[in-house]
This record gives sequence, structure tokens and C-alpha cells, in this order.
Amino acid sequence: MSYKKFRVIKPEIRVLGVDDGVFIPHTKGSALVVGVVFRGGYWLDGLMRTRIEVDGFDATDKIASMIISSPHYKQLRVIMLNGITFAGFNVVDIKALNKKTKLPIITVTREKPIFAEIRRALKNLPKSEERWEAILNAGETLEVFTRTEREKVYFQFSGILEEDAKRILKLTSTRSSVPEALRVAHLIASGISAV
Amino acid sequence: MSYKKFRVIKPEIRVLGVDDGVFIPHTKGSALVVGVVFRGGYWLDGLMRTRIEVDGFDATDKIASMIISSPHYKQLRVIMLNGITFAGFNVVDIKALNKKTKLPIITVTREKPIFAEIRRALKNLPKSEERWEAILNAGETLEVFTRTEREKVYFQFSGILEEDAKRILKLTSTRSSVPEALRVAHLIASGISAV
Repeated sequence: MSYKKFRVIKPEIRVLGVDDGVFIPHTKGSALVVGVVFRGGYWLDGLMRTRIEVDGFDATDKIASMIISSPHYKQLRVIMLNGITFAGFNVVDIKALNKKTKLPIITVTREKPIFAEIRRALKNLPKSEERWEAILNAGETLEVFTRTEREKVYFQFSGILEEDAKRILKLTSTRSSVPEALRVAHLIASGISAV
Repeated sequence: MSYKKFRVIKPEIRVLGVDDGVFIPHTKGSALVVGVVFRGGYWLDGLMRTRIEVDGFDATDKIASMIISSPHYKQLRVIMLNGITFAGFNVVDIKALNKKTKLPIITVTREKPIFAEIRRALKNLPKSEERWEAILNAGETLEVFTRTEREKVYFQFSGILEEDAKRILKLTSTRSSVPEALRVAHLIASGISAV
């Protein structure tokens, strides 16, 4: 594990928010994945993108390559993902992503993931055990109140202290309950790829 | 002309910034055009997109349709364009765009357009006189200092008072010399379409 302890967290810390676009489920196609470089919870600094297979196994590798090959890589301090499944059930192994990028990973969702339901859905897919392992590998789901005391989000993390992850989530959630980089990554990825 | 006089300009006025993506010049292809809904100079509220022909004649119509069919249309107060030529020399007729959308149009460039050069470049294209008319139709190019007294940009406008256009350009240029909606539209359009 590549492990990072933060002393000071600058309000303008460079974070990456990653989300996927719209795609046709259960098809042999690909989906757009967008990474948005944000200065804290404030403004957009850059953009990167890749494509991954619907229900495939390439999300971890493709997202890692997108990040490492970006001109923004050296400035990034934290990677945030909108959940751990992209393009259907293309699961990101957040420990592997942390190792490959040498950056802390935080996944964020507005709803509490219901693992029994995920496991059931996985059963219809090839290599369901491999996917399930990647999901378990993400570790415990914790909760944090971000922008206000009523806006709760759920998160998992790798390569960062729980307390630092919480501080970064609170600091960067300026316009909604989720970090601005993730709100904007969602708007861009879904808006650009709308079918 | 659809003409709008502003009494108060709210700091969070909804503006649209429009820019084109990367494309292969002088080919029979199309280019991505992205419209970014911004709250003043602060945050992204939404995104729309269309495609136009490289060196074609559909920019005005396609951009108008993109705007009018968007769920954000009713909230928009001003349209800003990164210049008046998109996808090569697909010229936007800003008076026609103003009439179609019933919204004020402001075009912005960092460099002063050199019309003699544009006219010369146009000569190699079909219907060069029609394109040149649309360029002349945009009217006088004025200048304004936006974020600071050293950051000058050039603008043309339709359906709005010169003074109101200047106030809106100053108000929304928070992170660079150009309005934030245009800075971000450029990052997104060029980042997504990078070849």
C-alpha cells in the first residue's frame, strides 16, 4: 500500500473526481470515464478521460493509466471515485489503484451501498467471485457529514487515514453533499455522453 | 433583434459559455461543441452539447437548437461564445443567434481579431462572401479589462447594451481574464475531444 498522512490540508488541494457517463447496460460496449481536476471545492483545473468496457474488468487499469499519463498527475494529492463500480459492474480495486497511482483513494456515494443486493446482481455476470473480491477489498463503508450536519455521504478509502479522508470530504463538498470534483465529473460525463 | 436591458446583475446570474473541441482541420468531419451553464463566475450548473460541420454553415442553427432544447434554457440570461468562428470557419451569426434564442449574445477573445487576415483565410473556402457577411454582421470589436486592470479581452455583442456586456464580463471573469463559463467550456470541449 502507498500510504499518505496529511499534516496540513490546503483549501486548494488538487483532487481528482472520477465518474462514468451514460451507457447501454448489459451490452458489449464501452462507457466514457471522466476525471476532473479540482482545486479543493472551488474550481476546475483540468480534465482527463478514458473508456472502459461495460461490465468488464479494465476499470482499475484504465483509470490508473489515465491518471498516471496525465500532465496533472504530479500535482494531484487525492483520487475520489463516485462509488467503486463503473460502467455497470466493472469494479475498481481501490487498493490496486492506490498502489498503481501512489495516491490516496476515496470512494463516495450518496446512498449506503447494500452489499447483499450487489452480490445478488453480480451472480448474473461472468467471474462474479472475482468482482466480489474487489468489492470486499475496498473495506468498510463509513459515513461522514460533509457540507452540513444533515448531508451524510458514505465512503471507503485506501492509502489514507480515516480522519484525513473525512477532512478532505468536508473541505471539498462546497456546493452539494458530495465533493465538488465528483459533482462536476458527474455533470460532465453524463452530459457529454447522453444518448 | 431581441433586446435586453439589465437593471440589476446578480453575482450568480446564469450564463452559458460555448466553445468547440479539437477537430481535424480542412476535412469533411464534425466537431464537438460544448455549452456550459455557469452561475456567474462561480460554479457549474449544467452542460449541453452538439456537433457541427468543420468549415460548414450550421453553427448558428445547431447552437441555437442546443440552447432552446436544453432544460436550462428558461434560466439562462446571457450566451457567451469563444469568438464567432467554430470548427474552423463555421461562423456564428450573432444577430441571428440572438433572434433565435431571445437572449443577449457576447463573443469574447483574448487576442484582437485581425479582420484582414480572416478575410484572406476565408477566400480558400466555398461561399466565402456569405461567411464574411456573418463576420461583419457581428459589429464592432470593443475591449474591456476584466479581472484586473491588466487583463484585457475583446468582445462583440448583440441584444445587450455595451455597458451591460462589460459589467457581465467583469463580474464573471473570476479565475482568468475570460468569463469562467468560457474557461471551463474550453477545458471540457478540448479535454473530451482530444485526438
